Amino acid sequence: MKSDPTSTHLSPNGAARMVDIASKPLTRRSASAEAWVNVGSEIAARLRQDGGLAKGNVLETARIAGIMAAKRTPELIPMCHPLVLNVVEVDARIVDDRVRIVSLVTCEGKTGVEMEAMIAASLAALTVYDMVKSAGKGVQIGPVRLLEKQGGKSGHWKREENCHAPG
Amino acid sequence: MKSDPTSTHLSPNGAARMVDIASKPLTRRSASAEAWVNVGSEIAARLRQDGGLAKGNVLETARIAGIMAAKRTPELIPMCHPLVLNVVEVDARIVDDRVRIVSLVTCEGKTGVEMEAMIAASLAALTVYDMVKSAGKGVQIGPVRLLEKQGGKSGHWKREENCHAPG
Amino acid sequence: MKSDPTSTHLSPNGAARMVDIASKPLTRRSASAEAWVNVGSEIAARLRQDGGLAKGNVLETARIAGIMAAKRTPELIPMCHPLVLNVVEVDARIVDDRVRIVSLVTCEGKTGVEMEAMIAASLAALTVYDMVKSAGKGVQIGPVRLLEKQGGKSGHWKREENCHAPG
Amino acid sequence: MKSDPTSTHLSPNGAARMVDIASKPLTRRSASAEAWVNVGSEIAARLRQDGGLAKGNVLETARIAGIMAAKRTPELIPMCHPLVLNVVEVDARIVDDRVRIVSLVTCEGKTGVEMEAMIAASLAALTVYDMVKSAGKGVQIGPVRLLEKQGGKSGHWKREENCHAPG
Amino acid sequence: MKSDPTSTHLSPNGAARMVDIASKPLTRRSASAEAWVNVGSEIAARLRQDGGLAKGNVLETARIAGIMAAKRTPELIPMCHPLVLNVVEVDARIVDDRVRIVSLVTCEGKTGVEMEAMIAASLAALTVYDMVKSAGKGVQIGPVRLLEKQGGKSGHWKREENCHAPG
Amino acid sequence: MKSDPTSTHLSPNGAARMVDIASKPLTRRSASAEAWVNVGSEIAARLRQDGGLAKGNVLETARIAGIMAAKRTPELIPMCHPLVLNVVEVDARIVDDRVRIVSLVTCEGKTGVEMEAMIAASLAALTVYDMVKSAGKGVQIGPVRLLEKQGGKSGHWKREENCHAPG
Repeated sequence: MKSDPTSTHLSPNGAARMVDIASKPLTRRSASAEAWVNVGSEIAARLRQDGGLAKGNVLETARIAGIMAAKRTPELIPMCHPLVLNVVEVDARIVDDRVRIVSLVTCEGKTGVEMEAMIAASLAALTVYDMVKSAGKGVQIGPVRLLEKQGGKSGHWKREENCHAPG
Repeated sequence: MKSDPTSTHLSPNGAARMVDIASKPLTRRSASAEAWVNVGSEIAARLRQDGGLAKGNVLETARIAGIMAAKRTPELIPMCHPLVLNVVEVDARIVDDRVRIVSLVTCEGKTGVEMEAMIAASLAALTVYDMVKSAGKGVQIGPVRLLEKQGGKSGHWKREENCHAPG
Repeated sequence: MKSDPTSTHLSPNGAARMVDIASKPLTRRSASAEAWVNVGSEIAARLRQDGGLAKGNVLETARIAGIMAAKRTPELIPMCHPLVLNVVEVDARIVDDRVRIVSLVTCEGKTGVEMEAMIAASLAALTVYDMVKSAGKGVQIGPVRLLEKQGGKSGHWKREENCHAPG
Repeated sequence: MKSDPTSTHLSPNGAARMVDIASKPLTRRSASAEAWVNVGSEIAARLRQDGGLAKGNVLETARIAGIMAAKRTPELIPMCHPLVLNVVEVDARIVDDRVRIVSLVTCEGKTGVEMEAMIAASLAALTVYDMVKSAGKGVQIGPVRLLEKQGGKSGHWKREENCHAPG
Repeated sequence: MKSDPTSTHLSPNGAARMVDIASKPLTRRSASAEAWVNVGSEIAARLRQDGGLAKGNVLETARIAGIMAAKRTPELIPMCHPLVLNVVEVDARIVDDRVRIVSLVTCEGKTGVEMEAMIAASLAALTVYDMVKSAGKGVQIGPVRLLEKQGGKSGHWKREENCHAPG
Repeated sequence: MKSDPTSTHLSPNGAARMVDIASKPLTRRSASAEAWVNVGSEIAARLRQDGGLAKGNVLETARIAGIMAAKRTPELIPMCHPLVLNVVEVDARIVDDRVRIVSLVTCEGKTGVEMEAMIAASLAALTVYDMVKSAGKGVQIGPVRLLEKQGGKSGHWKREENCHAPG
């Protein structure tokens, strides 16, 4: 790592700063992220068993919270730019003893939407946590991470490892 | 698990709902949570090496973002109650190749502040992620989890495992 | 009407103002409001027919939007006070060719929660509107109105007319 | 109604979603909506009589609340897109025993501004309600509805009925 | 100055922090602040001359903006606590060639409302600036300062100098 | 001043309004503003002396608050348009007995970013005030004023006077 990894978000004298995107071209961008919530076997079974309202509503509430939070990314992350998003998609499903959240965000802009995707996945996961936390303190969130990214100078990137088996 | 783990946040017909806290007593509450960001050895070294402004400012910006986000928890988590918080503390430091965020929130209220603590830790971690993400797509967040909780009917709870070495 | 109906929210020289609630006692308050959306027979049939996800999700998304908006009432209504709410409940169901939203909000505070109840019902109705508007420009919202109110100096009030048949 | 009226806002498996507007052209859009508040004859007379500050300030506060709320539409309506608005106009006047609010919103965007117009009118109406509610529980809001819409694939639409005499 | 003036808002190692108010008593608090906008003689004359709508609306819009901003103080000032305010009052008037804004905020809380009063005055002043800025770049804001403060450990404080003639 | 200075923000009948920017061209805009906080000699010395964390963190927290607030300008200033900002920069330093904040904001838009620059400087100054206010009630803010502006019909403007010696 030859260049300073933090250099884009810190000025020469070390102060945190927004990256100036004035001279960047307006391009199509997309980013996808995932977040896992290890709810444990009992809650997972409960959420999975009836395919019914209870399942639908915990996961649906989480999805909506993720979508709404993504739109507020620049209010939450100090150095993020406001962007005009084309879409925010959030999927939530049960995988073994965990809930897996996957987000997808696209825009046409001068900077990427990784943080919007990460915020969408994180807030959906935190909303699942909120709704099941009374069932056990052991529930925890993670990993939260980028899955794929397109557009911008750095081009296309896709996580190589098997995304269904983090940890 | 005899009772439905999701029962407090879902009405009898399965709709998501806020818990009615009208009849709960007003008590002193606190909650602490942690979030880890595996920034990798190069960024960790960089953040650790000079004890200087660069380090201070990435972590300090993250701390401030976490504190500010905690105050907006009820806007972000659909079923959370507004609370009058006494304090939000966020600590951020380098542990091996990772950044560890620890939050502490207290209030006097009718419901707990776990979500405020989880939001503070998560958003601080996401802010670290934002500021170092240009250095490598491999950075990921997790675990994010409760460390301790006091007050309310369920009393005192503390995570048993060694918090410095999450899996 | 002997006294000026607008007097509580206007100063002697006519400027809009918040009511000063410093000397009011802290009491238990509740308010319930309703909002109707005349979606028309086709959409109503569609939402009613399968009791399935489509129905659940339009109405569930609306309920969540109403709950979240109620918590932001003082940001939206210029002269409203911030309040620590005990609960916001929103029910949404199909009645003939319309969607009926009913909200209930409670708090212990120095002022009432009518506006929180009205906001919850209105924003849930607007969210239904958003999700069905592509099916017809004829959809409209109304009435939006208070159903019941308890607590505070003016005591208990309940709308007399048959709430299922506005218009 | 052959196609599913809710199809644009629900994914194939029924989950609520934002419409993906990536492939839509950027066009000039406008939308106008109205909201009525039946304040009753006494308040209407009071608001009308002196053309003075009291009138100005109830209606002016409502107008400002409507304009400010329109800008926050994507925070309030879960599936709405952020848009860069060109203007939000809100007019408020007394018509017989009611206050009539009319909003107009324009933008250049990939999706329409109906919800911004509906939010502007609704929140202005709710602000009128807040300021006159102490004068009578009978005050109610409605109809709230679209008056006109231009731009986008569906082109120009204008409500046919006499807008000054809603039901 | 024996003690560190910044000590309450910085931890022993220098990190910014919220003051922990858990052990402070709940008392009646109030604070008043002022902000001046030197609009210049032409705009002042214009705003003063007709006592009409133009004057009313610039100053009235500013007043409303100040009241609304005060309620969002903890979102804007990183280390501020959420408080349940009893009232926010904002007065705006022409004094010679300037607009003088005076705010008053009260609450019952564990910490003071100085920042709410300062925010109310500042944002009202900034709103005046926004509405008259097209008339001249020379317009500037200041001073913005506390006028009076009551409640809490430090008791009653009142600015001594003639508040109508800032420097 | 022949034309009405308030005319762009008031409709013909005097109501406050947003300026309609639909027909304006999209151009590169920038604005810079400053805000001063006279913290007094003792605090200034304290902040200056050690170049260390305490100084860094008061000023760094203020900078971050200013950047975050600028992004929320249209929520705070009633008649401001939402804009997609390219960058917000905030510099904070000690000049004699005062803290000087300088902001710079750029965008490509149909209207200028003066208010974003003014908000960034003001909120950074208010955050400094918050963190040092316990050291003395004498601290005050001002002047807050535009330094430079580029783009748009009115072209380039730069304040002539020596910006380091206001007052």
